[in-house]
Amino acid sequence: MKPILVFQTDFTYKEGAVCAMYGVVKSVDRTLEIIDGTHELPNYDIWSASYRLYQSMEFWPKDTVFVSVVDPGVGTKRRACVAKTADGYTVVTPDNGSLTHVKKKMGIVEVREIDERVNRLKRTEGVSVFHGRDLFGYCAARLAAGVITYGEVGPAYSVEEIVELPVFEAVLENGAVKGIFEIDDPNFGNLWTNIPRELFAKAGFDYGDTLNVCVSHGEKTAYKGKALFEKSFGYAKKGDVMIYNNELMRVAMAVAQGSLAGEHGLGYGADWHVTFTKE
Amino acid sequence: MKPILVFQTDFTYKEGAVCAMYGVVKSVDRTLEIIDGTHELPNYDIWSASYRLYQSMEFWPKDTVFVSVVDPGVGTKRRACVAKTADGYTVVTPDNGSLTHVKKKMGIVEVREIDERVNRLKRTEGVSVFHGRDLFGYCAARLAAGVITYGEVGPAYSVEEIVELPVFEAVLENGAVKGIFEIDDPNFGNLWTNIPRELFAKAGFDYGDTLNVCVSHGEKTAYKGKALFEKSFGYAKKGDVMIYNNELMRVAMAVAQGSLAGEHGLGYGADWHVTFTKE
Amino acid sequence: MKPILVFQTDFTYKEGAVCAMYGVVKSVDRTLEIIDGTHELPNYDIWSASYRLYQSMEFWPKDTVFVSVVDPGVGTKRRACVAKTADGYTVVTPDNGSLTHVKKKMGIVEVREIDERVNRLKRTEGVSVFHGRDLFGYCAARLAAGVITYGEVGPAYSVEEIVELPVFEAVLENGAVKGIFEIDDPNFGNLWTNIPRELFAKAGFDYGDTLNVCVSHGEKTAYKGKALFEKSFGYAKKGDVMIYNNELMRVAMAVAQGSLAGEHGLGYGADWHVTFTKE
Repeated sequence: MKPILVFQTDFTYKEGAVCAMYGVVKSVDRTLEIIDGTHELPNYDIWSASYRLYQSMEFWPKDTVFVSVVDPGVGTKRRACVAKTADGYTVVTPDNGSLTHVKKKMGIVEVREIDERVNRLKRTEGVSVFHGRDLFGYCAARLAAGVITYGEVGPAYSVEEIVELPVFEAVLENGAVKGIFEIDDPNFGNLWTNIPRELFAKAGFDYGDTLNVCVSHGEKTAYKGKALFEKSFGYAKKGDVMIYNNELMRVAMAVAQGSLAGEHGLGYGADWHVTFTKE
Repeated sequence: MKPILVFQTDFTYKEGAVCAMYGVVKSVDRTLEIIDGTHELPNYDIWSASYRLYQSMEFWPKDTVFVSVVDPGVGTKRRACVAKTADGYTVVTPDNGSLTHVKKKMGIVEVREIDERVNRLKRTEGVSVFHGRDLFGYCAARLAAGVITYGEVGPAYSVEEIVELPVFEAVLENGAVKGIFEIDDPNFGNLWTNIPRELFAKAGFDYGDTLNVCVSHGEKTAYKGKALFEKSFGYAKKGDVMIYNNELMRVAMAVAQGSLAGEHGLGYGADWHVTFTKE
Repeated sequence: MKPILVFQTDFTYKEGAVCAMYGVVKSVDRTLEIIDGTHELPNYDIWSASYRLYQSMEFWPKDTVFVSVVDPGVGTKRRACVAKTADGYTVVTPDNGSLTHVKKKMGIVEVREIDERVNRLKRTEGVSVFHGRDLFGYCAARLAAGVITYGEVGPAYSVEEIVELPVFEAVLENGAVKGIFEIDDPNFGNLWTNIPRELFAKAGFDYGDTLNVCVSHGEKTAYKGKALFEKSFGYAKKGDVMIYNNELMRVAMAVAQGSLAGEHGLGYGADWHVTFTKE
């Protein structure tokens, strides 16, 4: 069977862009299967693109082709590329940082720059603003359909050159676990830290413990309080702030059946620090 | 052919959850067909999950497998189950009330609790917050693919034990038809009552009639006025409140090319009563 | 292979309508492939329906069947139709203006009115508000599946009778290029004019030029300023207003990594005039 194509972009479904992009894929090969990863990544947010790839990739069959297009630099000199992961996945994307997590966590073994002279949809040569349709979608479809080999994508370049965004590591210091909120679960208003649950275990924090939480945003304290650390939301009282292990085995925070981000004005990024201590 | 999998959740497409869940399905069996029912159910709203299943199920081929995940109690002791309807459909869902309408209107003939030891995605054992991916999606895929039989889902339990939310019936009293707004059409701001159109017929209300409408919310009158009862929106003047029979053959209200809920501050639920009288 | 069905509506995924509609299609023929064009067209906005069809159609395989349902007149006497384009596409839609662009730009060679007595889903006869499910989706599925021929859709009528919305043409006068904003890119807040890039070329406007822009809304000046005309967003400074050629080879405007419509309060339609001059 031909590989599945999974798309993630910040295009939304509010206009005709996704439809045109998928039409190009189906015009290359009617039998290709297209799955929406998401088209609601935050606008221009390359970090989210990188994180969402990492969050979902490992659950897919090994030859799946991911097309990830958050591309504020479309039409400029940033590279358009096709990367191969150590696990056997393929990612078609602007090389602008969207490969950060996949490179760090799964490993990338090869990368090629898309040769526009070969792998660009004909009759779109004057268009510089829609590489999702004209370059990434088209090239991914040709690759998945077997119209081109991986070598025919374009020239290889060094994996070392792949653009990476800074990633922060959590630490355990004097019994305090310190990290950042590195991403959110925007629908439910949960915030996910970069703290692996092993670090909580190492610190001696267990389900059932009530922990002290301090969140700072830059210089300012944004939230301070006690919160229950539990297996799932249902163990906390509706409306209470609580701590849990998320689906990627990292420490996260929520308001049970509410919105932590919304109700407490919290966000995520390198300047959103969170510290957990016991007693 | 293998059954189609139709998913409905409150996850949205704002992050990577749906993508990971679908990856699990495709990793069980590449040939399974996945259809988005919706991923925009209101957060934690089990009633909506139940209603939307009821609204769409009968239009699908008889062996379709529905996966419905609105699950505020994820990871707690609420049952995870697979139910068989009298019509031959299968529903994979937390047993938390989401089977209310299907049980009442279509009938459920068998139900089994998902055995986590068998039907849980391996390597996710420490995760208690994402049964859509690890339990419901995975188990539904195995069932649809024929990897397990229905009997292998887990132990059967009595249909009587299935959790049900309260459902209210409309009445005709002294020429007045009384019901509640039981759900909305959120995009257009329409509100749907629990009044079957037969009750309107019995009351002698016909297309072309102008009816008196009184809506109360708890103790307060929320709306009072006259409205045309007609076949469709186009028979009312743009901006007018009107009454119609909705797609499930129940009485509903709208503002023609506007939003009844938005413009008049109306909602739905057990405390939103509506009464129709003639002349 | 059977034709693909591409759907576009203003239903959203907020309730069960799309799910029911797709169930009808799959009940006609399990093997039909359904693709979401979009379900987030602006409510009741026939112009957008027409534009989005035009924007995406040409990228699809030639026998694709488009089902377009923005239908404020559902259940009234407006025609339900199936049109054949000069290129070999099929469009199933209310004949209410949604064929405007396709007729003008691609050409329509035949049109037939859907005969409700034959091509309406049985047991929905009393429902007048959901032709997406009961008429358009059902008839499109039967046609794509080969259950009916095109002739069996219903009686042919003259292509001349197809309802068209007014379309405005851009002009070059005394070195000034004048047009309207005819549609938006709502996610990014970009605005697209009706000015073909050839008209810019004829006026001598080149990439790298800074142009004077004047936008008026009715009688009022809505925006006045200078803006860079470039190949893509990345050539402008983040936050700057800029001019580019969009994916349909028309002149468009944006704020680089921002929202032109949002930040400057601009919209689209026949009363949103824009004039470009050089120096």
